[in-house]
Amino acid sequence: MKSYVTMNKEELTNLVQELQIQYDHFKSQGLQLNMARGKPDFDQLGLSKDMLDVIDSQSEIPNDYLNYGILDGTLEAKEFFAEMLDVSKDNLIIYGNSSLNIMFDQISRGYTHGYMGATPWCQLDKIKFLCPVPGYDRHFAITEHFGIEMIPVPLNDNGPDMDVVEQYVNNDESVKGIWCVPQYSNPTGTTYSDETVKRFASLKPAAKDFRIFWDNAYCIHHLYSDKQDHVANIIKACEEAGNPDIVFEFCSTSKVTFPGSGVAAMATSKNNKQDILKHMTIQTIGHDKINQLRHVRYFKNIDGLMKHMEKQADVLRPKFEAVIEILDKELSGLDIASWSHPLGGYFVSFDAMEGCAKDIVNACKEAGVILTGAGATYPYGKDPKDSHIRIAPSYPTLDELKQAAQLFTLCVKLVSAKKTLESLH
Amino acid sequence: MKSYVTMNKEELTNLVQELQIQYDHFKSQGLQLNMARGKPDFDQLGLSKDMLDVIDSQSEIPNDYLNYGILDGTLEAKEFFAEMLDVSKDNLIIYGNSSLNIMFDQISRGYTHGYMGATPWCQLDKIKFLCPVPGYDRHFAITEHFGIEMIPVPLNDNGPDMDVVEQYVNNDESVKGIWCVPQYSNPTGTTYSDETVKRFASLKPAAKDFRIFWDNAYCIHHLYSDKQDHVANIIKACEEAGNPDIVFEFCSTSKVTFPGSGVAAMATSKNNKQDILKHMTIQTIGHDKINQLRHVRYFKNIDGLMKHMEKQADVLRPKFEAVIEILDKELSGLDIASWSHPLGGYFVSFDAMEGCAKDIVNACKEAGVILTGAGATYPYGKDPKDSHIRIAPSYPTLDELKQAAQLFTLCVKLVSAKKTLESLH
Repeated sequence: MKSYVTMNKEELTNLVQELQIQYDHFKSQGLQLNMARGKPDFDQLGLSKDMLDVIDSQSEIPNDYLNYGILDGTLEAKEFFAEMLDVSKDNLIIYGNSSLNIMFDQISRGYTHGYMGATPWCQLDKIKFLCPVPGYDRHFAITEHFGIEMIPVPLNDNGPDMDVVEQYVNNDESVKGIWCVPQYSNPTGTTYSDETVKRFASLKPAAKDFRIFWDNAYCIHHLYSDKQDHVANIIKACEEAGNPDIVFEFCSTSKVTFPGSGVAAMATSKNNKQDILKHMTIQTIGHDKINQLRHVRYFKNIDGLMKHMEKQADVLRPKFEAVIEILDKELSGLDIASWSHPLGGYFVSFDAMEGCAKDIVNACKEAGVILTGAGATYPYGKDPKDSHIRIAPSYPTLDELKQAAQLFTLCVKLVSAKKTLESLH
Repeated sequence: MKSYVTMNKEELTNLVQELQIQYDHFKSQGLQLNMARGKPDFDQLGLSKDMLDVIDSQSEIPNDYLNYGILDGTLEAKEFFAEMLDVSKDNLIIYGNSSLNIMFDQISRGYTHGYMGATPWCQLDKIKFLCPVPGYDRHFAITEHFGIEMIPVPLNDNGPDMDVVEQYVNNDESVKGIWCVPQYSNPTGTTYSDETVKRFASLKPAAKDFRIFWDNAYCIHHLYSDKQDHVANIIKACEEAGNPDIVFEFCSTSKVTFPGSGVAAMATSKNNKQDILKHMTIQTIGHDKINQLRHVRYFKNIDGLMKHMEKQADVLRPKFEAVIEILDKELSGLDIASWSHPLGGYFVSFDAMEGCAKDIVNACKEAGVILTGAGATYPYGKDPKDSHIRIAPSYPTLDELKQAAQLFTLCVKLVSAKKTLESLH
């Protein structure tokens, strides 16, 4: 493959023409594919259908699980998540079906009531959150919704740039939080290093109500059994650093069983837990304890859970490999892009030439392949380089995915060739 | 029975002595009973256990019900609640397991973002809610939590005193809402008259973001098949009055199937729905659609639902009748109390002599029977007459309930006799 940047005007002109013909041909096929969201496909969902058999009318169910109450979750569910996150059950609150909703509620609680006696954010002039980028669009949507100023922080191979994080957190009292996906980060697949976790735990926040929003969404979502990342335990690290109250850790079974019908949980210090329960007892009488029981009885223990995740990996891995194989084959050596080779999570992260991401996403869309909007992985949807694209291989079938990835690489080439040609004018 | 107020000092002194002996005897039995909360008992919960069989691994479940999405609820669930509330499915949002949580979220949303473009309440100096009294303590807890000033409004036999309601709502821009339980009201059992509903629908609020919080918790919770209340349709009434946007109507299956594992819903105008969904789409990706499907498939339609409620009434009715029979037998003619004879809902409402409620609740507690705290049915827990007590007959067994009611009447007599005697000094 010849690097585009080494091509002369004529070569590039011919290339653009040739790619345009291929693109028009693709377009004529009328594809309708979606690589936008990290949704499981039906095969993957099917792996959990047996869970619907473990509770029926003959099941022994504690009376109080059928009734109101048990605000912080059933004992079994707490024990289960305690094992999954390697924390004490006393650190846990088990919620309903959505960890996103827990995060929203935490932000909302900070805004309306404040954490552990701190001034509610709505009474302060300016609230800021740090946002490692590229990151998760739904995180950014929550902070934007509450009018919180978002400050992008570069996400490097070991995690967020901790010099920048420390500079802000330890000096600016208006910085109240940071969004983190510490393992198989959405979208880059990055896992924070032990050193990064240690530096997080050792922060000396200017704001006493600063919190790390540790969205450990992909903590057990490995693609390989022999090559795995494992982020260090933030709850323990913060305890050891004498900073037990600075972190909220979130997780769920949304991408383990059924998105929408899973169980979500939060781990945090006992002080935070107590503070949160005072608010929660006004908000609800309790979450769905039958569904909590259904999950625990289905998996039995952490071994059952991890076996289940291996089966899911068997569905997901070929999809990731297919996409990456096509990217490697079609784009290597062209000097127009780079992309991730993640070991887990739900995304392949793609960096196009500067100024090309929007055009690539649009070109895909016009040919029937929906990608996450360019810029979505940045606060306010603004990718300053217009370079990053998030690819979600989980939802299409393998055949569809190959078609979509093929079209994607074609669009990358076409847009990049045009751009390079323009730059010669 | 001789009225206490007609007794002389000697008669009352003897009466107090006699009642004290009976009370001490009760106390020695070491009862441990609870008539505090409107919780179903295990027999009643058992009536819904078959619901756990309707969805299993072999069930036909639409693929997208197993996945993320469908923010406002499944089509079947919307159709089901539309029939239950006699509204269009376009008026409905189907949520998770808790209508209390929906109400909390609505208040929180008013506070943080405001309704349909109105100023968020957190930016205003003073926010007020009208609270028909006696009312539901968890409603009052939400408004108190958000620092909203609560104004008690007398609840009469036809509903809240509408002269007072109109006076406040139509003239005071800081009045942003009113809490209503319009059918079999908690705790009085009152059902609002058609005229009351009409006056609600015809309010001309000074605040454009005033909303009626219409908690129709007991809309299908009749105790009798031949004697039933039916509150008029507030959604239609507001539409007809040209006021479609002034109401949020809440309901759930918490007291139909399993509290904690039910399905909750809100009906409101299309404008409100659109406004709410803009907020919800930031908060969550969707609620538990499998549980929505489970409920609809279990009941099939409104007839199935109403048959189920008749079975529940067969469990609840004897309990209500037992309590009321004991109240009638033990307290009639003494001129020391009055109590409700509800046709539905979950409570018997009891009015003691002024200044006696706290003492009665304490005397019961000391003898092992927990009642809802005196004052709980008033904003800030302050019953100005210290007179009202809420009795919840649903949770104890029939035998326990009879014991508890017997003790309760004894405590009422003892406290009232002492009080009457004191008044002679």
